Amino acid sequence: MRIIGIDPGLAIVGYCILDIEKEKNILLTSGSIQTDKKNTDSARLFEIQQDLKTILEKYQPTVASIEKLFYFKNQKTIIPVAEARGVILSVLEEKLIPVFEYTPIEVKQIITGYGRATKEEVAKIVKMSVEYKHLPKLDDTLDSIAIALCYSRFNIK
Amino acid sequence: MRIIGIDPGLAIVGYCILDIEKEKNILLTSGSIQTDKKNTDSARLFEIQQDLKTILEKYQPTVASIEKLFYFKNQKTIIPVAEARGVILSVLEEKLIPVFEYTPIEVKQIITGYGRATKEEVAKIVKMSVEYKHLPKLDDTLDSIAIALCYSRFNIK
Repeated sequence: MRIIGIDPGLAIVGYCILDIEKEKNILLTSGSIQTDKKNTDSARLFEIQQDLKTILEKYQPTVASIEKLFYFKNQKTIIPVAEARGVILSVLEEKLIPVFEYTPIEVKQIITGYGRATKEEVAKIVKMSVEYKHLPKLDDTLDSIAIALCYSRFNIK
Repeated sequence: MRIIGIDPGLAIVGYCILDIEKEKNILLTSGSIQTDKKNTDSARLFEIQQDLKTILEKYQPTVASIEKLFYFKNQKTIIPVAEARGVILSVLEEKLIPVFEYTPIEVKQIITGYGRATKEEVAKIVKMSVEYKHLPKLDDTLDSIAIALCYSRFNIK
């Protein structure tokens, strides 16, 4: 089974492709779609749509695991992230890929057993949970692996 | 010049097609894309994408005028609306249609001269500002006309 993990954003969409084989999670590839803030929001969203389609066509994942947004007070950046997420969900539906969603707190809870774990604690367990040749340095990409692992945790056994 | 006015939403996307001729605003058509809440968000967003493409191909608007989201405290419905808006912006970019955006307060300000005008006050002026055969009853559709008129106001003279 092949999962695409996605950490949505307007400036950066982190993604990874994870193959689940028996009890192993193999990180096939990971990266990010980055859009230029000099462009209009519409142009950036369309770029995300096009780039994601290319990635899906190349790697043909069976399922998608994506961060679900959770509303909390004064989180002003939520609008552009939600706009990007809308585009991503629509592309996944077009490609008939089932979507599983986890909030940031659920990701921390599932990965570390503790909903208020730090980024470093999550990263440490992520690194132990996957087999990889190159591990991404970008936070958003690393987060996408944590998100993919949430699906894997419930489905690997 | 032909404008599409769009009031975004996950359940209902209100839209109108407005032709500006000399000093007249002619309402060519108006309606709504409605999605079933029994479906997944991904399916609903993809439906919005597909239906909007059909409308754009049929009416070939020159420009789009769309409601811009404005973040304020405790507006919990903002996430699904932003997700729908992301899909809509991406489609408009795909069709190379320039996008103009107005916040709800700007719409009220431009239409009535008063940023805290009621829905009824806005509706009254909208009805006086366009020539129409049938005026929509649905609030979201009527709102899309107000949004289209914001662009028209600055570009008709």
